[in-house]
Amino acid sequence: MQMTENKLHLKHVEITSGFWQRYRDLVVKEVLPYQWQVMNDEADISISVDPQNNGQDKNSHAVANLKIAAGQQEGHHYGFPFQDTDVYKWLEAAAYSFNYHPDADLQKITDNLINLIADAQEDDGYLSTYFQIDAPERKFKRLQQSHELYTMGHYIEAGVAYYQATGNQKALDVATRMADCIDRNFGLEDGKIPGLDGHPEIELALTRLYEATQNDKYLKLAHYFLNQRGQDPEFFDKQIAIDGNSDERDIIRGMREPDLTYFLAAEPIKNQKVPQGHAVRVVYLCTGMAYVARYTGDQDLLDACHRFWTDLVRRQMYITGNIGSTTQGEALTYAYDLPNDTMYGETCASVGMAFFARQMLHLDAKGEYADVLEKELFNGALSGMSLDGKHFFYVNPLEADPVESQLNPDKSHVLTHRADWFGCACCPANLARLITSVDQYLYTVDGQTILSHQFIANQATFADELQITQTNNFPWEGNIHYAVKNPQEKAVKLGLRIPGWSPKFTLTVNGQVRTEVVQDGFIYLDIQAATTDIDLVLDMQVKLMQANNRVNADFGKVAIQRGPIVYAAEEADNPAPLWQYQVAADAKTTYHYEQSLLNGVGVITVAANKQAAMSDQQVLYAPVSTGVENSETELTLVPYYAWANRLNGQMSVWLNRQYH
Amino acid sequence: MQMTENKLHLKHVEITSGFWQRYRDLVVKEVLPYQWQVMNDEADISISVDPQNNGQDKNSHAVANLKIAAGQQEGHHYGFPFQDTDVYKWLEAAAYSFNYHPDADLQKITDNLINLIADAQEDDGYLSTYFQIDAPERKFKRLQQSHELYTMGHYIEAGVAYYQATGNQKALDVATRMADCIDRNFGLEDGKIPGLDGHPEIELALTRLYEATQNDKYLKLAHYFLNQRGQDPEFFDKQIAIDGNSDERDIIRGMREPDLTYFLAAEPIKNQKVPQGHAVRVVYLCTGMAYVARYTGDQDLLDACHRFWTDLVRRQMYITGNIGSTTQGEALTYAYDLPNDTMYGETCASVGMAFFARQMLHLDAKGEYADVLEKELFNGALSGMSLDGKHFFYVNPLEADPVESQLNPDKSHVLTHRADWFGCACCPANLARLITSVDQYLYTVDGQTILSHQFIANQATFADELQITQTNNFPWEGNIHYAVKNPQEKAVKLGLRIPGWSPKFTLTVNGQVRTEVVQDGFIYLDIQAATTDIDLVLDMQVKLMQANNRVNADFGKVAIQRGPIVYAAEEADNPAPLWQYQVAADAKTTYHYEQSLLNGVGVITVAANKQAAMSDQQVLYAPVSTGVENSETELTLVPYYAWANRLNGQMSVWLNRQYH
Repeated sequence: MQMTENKLHLKHVEITSGFWQRYRDLVVKEVLPYQWQVMNDEADISISVDPQNNGQDKNSHAVANLKIAAGQQEGHHYGFPFQDTDVYKWLEAAAYSFNYHPDADLQKITDNLINLIADAQEDDGYLSTYFQIDAPERKFKRLQQSHELYTMGHYIEAGVAYYQATGNQKALDVATRMADCIDRNFGLEDGKIPGLDGHPEIELALTRLYEATQNDKYLKLAHYFLNQRGQDPEFFDKQIAIDGNSDERDIIRGMREPDLTYFLAAEPIKNQKVPQGHAVRVVYLCTGMAYVARYTGDQDLLDACHRFWTDLVRRQMYITGNIGSTTQGEALTYAYDLPNDTMYGETCASVGMAFFARQMLHLDAKGEYADVLEKELFNGALSGMSLDGKHFFYVNPLEADPVESQLNPDKSHVLTHRADWFGCACCPANLARLITSVDQYLYTVDGQTILSHQFIANQATFADELQITQTNNFPWEGNIHYAVKNPQEKAVKLGLRIPGWSPKFTLTVNGQVRTEVVQDGFIYLDIQAATTDIDLVLDMQVKLMQANNRVNADFGKVAIQRGPIVYAAEEADNPAPLWQYQVAADAKTTYHYEQSLLNGVGVITVAANKQAAMSDQQVLYAPVSTGVENSETELTLVPYYAWANRLNGQMSVWLNRQYH
Repeated sequence: MQMTENKLHLKHVEITSGFWQRYRDLVVKEVLPYQWQVMNDEADISISVDPQNNGQDKNSHAVANLKIAAGQQEGHHYGFPFQDTDVYKWLEAAAYSFNYHPDADLQKITDNLINLIADAQEDDGYLSTYFQIDAPERKFKRLQQSHELYTMGHYIEAGVAYYQATGNQKALDVATRMADCIDRNFGLEDGKIPGLDGHPEIELALTRLYEATQNDKYLKLAHYFLNQRGQDPEFFDKQIAIDGNSDERDIIRGMREPDLTYFLAAEPIKNQKVPQGHAVRVVYLCTGMAYVARYTGDQDLLDACHRFWTDLVRRQMYITGNIGSTTQGEALTYAYDLPNDTMYGETCASVGMAFFARQMLHLDAKGEYADVLEKELFNGALSGMSLDGKHFFYVNPLEADPVESQLNPDKSHVLTHRADWFGCACCPANLARLITSVDQYLYTVDGQTILSHQFIANQATFADELQITQTNNFPWEGNIHYAVKNPQEKAVKLGLRIPGWSPKFTLTVNGQVRTEVVQDGFIYLDIQAATTDIDLVLDMQVKLMQANNRVNADFGKVAIQRGPIVYAAEEADNPAPLWQYQVAADAKTTYHYEQSLLNGVGVITVAANKQAAMSDQQVLYAPVSTGVENSETELTLVPYYAWANRLNGQMSVWLNRQYH
């Protein structure tokens, strides 16, 4: 498979969706300034509630680390060895924001930041402030835990984005010098390190740099890192034996304990049957795999992409799109093991899953990829940030109880309110960069075919003056209008996604009802007229959902979904405990949009049977049907992404089904 | 409350129950020899499967530690600082076995063991081999984790038992010298240590020594330890500051991390509202509290006993009698938090709960205490040992899946087959001593009142030639016959327990049906005739049980119970996955006794609806009621105590209730 020449390349997308405009403005107005303050240690925050804080205090020190490395400031490195990536992801988020919100003041800051980063970079292109400041003799010596290539990969992504948004050549030059440094140091040739980073990221970053520069070297290097993964299962141990075997030598405490599965390095990718290990590593690696496969046509990688995708999406994903069933190793476990209360579901893993889905759409025009992308955008990823843009979830549970989180240590990692910041602050800026770049997730163009696979209202401009204007009030309403302008009357195929949640739909083209066959989740229209008006009406009925009955945790339970939005019951709306409500399979539901609630959300009610709580004085166990009073009531549900913005209380996505 | 003069004191109980004879013979023939081999490092065992092994290998070294301390052998201490207690609990179990199975060969071993222990004991009475061998300067200096009083307490229990069983005075003398040593060292007087052990045990042990010796000093010392608990929350920290604050100084790695709640030392007992912390510590402390309260009448202690009992039994206990909802700290959590799959349910905690229940029966004649005692004997405690007597559970889950235990680290502590031994081997000998002493758990005598509160067939001889012969085929049949011989025609009140699981019963005295009022779980009969024949017929219907609906984990589920026996579904009898079966509240059940199965067990079948497993190729979530095939079938259940003696497969006590 070769890179397809996109005659119809996408030039610009303007998001007009009210839902996403609000989020994108929020990132500009609140998230970016707030995170910049935090990284400069100027914000008054508390991270003490963060169970992932790993002993970090509230000091981020991320910008200071760069200043020290640049010789502008004295001191030691502080924070995780990958602390630099907080800055890079923030920079990348800012770069995307310039595409819809140019801001000279912010650009002054980011231009200066590029200068700082360039100053911090060593002459040979190396940049990882921890090693430069406090362990220069240990560069590339403990890659299992050093995150050096992960860190530089995040800069490369940011540098490319910044260059593309602003034309700042220095930003790109820093990236290419980094990549050249890595290329000089890594590979199977004599004198190079025949290894790789414990945390994938460099693979996707280098491919992105290849796209920006068209320099084959970077694609080959990315391919090398994918091919090399798992080839030498002793690589990390051999490095550690040389670098020093004692606990004190560990760069991240405890990082030596997980086995190679955690690092996705137990065997070559082509031999790995199912994705296992640290969930974020998995999706970053998968993104790199699909990205490299797109440009190399490597069949082993393509097969692995499809194999991993299927297992992730059909067997290891929560209904909200979250992945990672255990806090131990922040990891995937195995097929259908999806506990709702002890789970992890890291925000970064959902962000990474969106990356993976986008890449898969480049490989195959399958609606399933776009379904999952949409699921992440509207649920699992978006849940990671509060409506005020200043509080964040690392862990996204599907069932939560503040008392449980406080008193049962098996659930202490589950916060029931979002935190100001994290000692390991990977998630906040990761979500910010997804939101500011969401315009890049709506279309996939291949040859003369345009896939319009998201229902996020927008105006897109392509080459040849082709313009698609999508208007709607999605996700609250399902009437999707497309106005296509094609003044040059080019022959174009337009693929419109029919989402998995809407097998029923009606399609009208220029006022005429059409009955197209759905092919892999898309209907295709030949567009050649100068103007075409299309109306797609999706099924926005409230649906009671069940899990595949191979999932123990969801057996006998229902979840509520409408369109792409998965709903949650919260104690803020429903007297606790939530598990005493039971919902019948045919329970009546209502839906209404409520402008004044949670920045405007669709609210669902579902008829439910509520058991009165039994006495706390009676015996704990008794023959069935004694002493249970039932009443007919209803549950009120709000979108999952918006939970935990009010009362700190119980929440549940899955509701008990009514028994008899 | 003063000690009541028991004119009617119990002289001897011979267990005639076939069920318990088998277990008691098993302990004599298999368990005691096997454990003796293990403690002498002569058994070929593997403890590598034990997630609690804490880095111990298969070497017990427990007897060797005593030999080194006694100067009979060179070397270092090996194992936990409380490794000695394995030997003591084994010795105590052996002592009880002599009451029903005198064995000169075994007694030669145990007499020699007493000599060894006496040789290992220091002149001042101190005995804790770890400190004697490897840290003599640190005695009593780090009581948070040293387990010194816990260790000596276990010897005191064993020494008293051995003295009472064999008349060996040396066994008792070692105990009194230990207690005197502790008395010289601990207390609020000048020059003494104003503290206590991190692990309760000494309190109940000293009270037992007081019973045996009638020396008030020991009761007062026990009372001191109870009163002092939580009085100085900084005691442990102050000791550690002096003994050395670095990790390397810790006697048990990580033992400094739990907060004072874990040690039950955050506040004085009288201020503690509910039992929290390490479950075994809780029940050992409660046993000591009830024991001391019986002899001192301390109202604060009595109140705490009732308060803790109520919370434990009505809010924190699994239907099997197990306690401890989390593996982290092997601890209780809070009311109604009873997850079935991530739980702990340590065997020792159930054994200790039986101790507590027995003590509570001395305080109040309440059937509830005997109900719980019976629940532990037939379920939660007994589950700790395999039918062959050579494999043991530390953790007793109510839901288990070998794949889950292997692939989800949150459940890695849940073994689905019993282990040969444990690095921390507290459970095996604890259960052995409960089984060999079960004859001491059947009667509670107070004044002229005899409570016969267990249905374990036996012949009991009291003072004044009074004899009660109970015959039955319990727990498989509910016809309980009592033949009372009272040749001196003394006026006696006989309390017969009506168990909580059998509100319906029939009572016949000398052939005449009687309708007595049940008072707190007992019916009382005035016995003065020379012979009385009593027939009690209990309700042995199979019952579908539900939990109080405040328990999230059991909502929408039923458990099956018959008499005191809680049942479990195993993959050995039912094709997995077990969660795909659903049981209606009115499901038909059958019961039959099967001699050839699991050493003879009652087997229950229950009608169930089985969903066919959905395809693993389809989407994970779909609208309800699509693609589910149901079939009518039945589940076969076996007693919980007998699970995991066949196929290593799934097990579940709680079954999904049928929904509509």
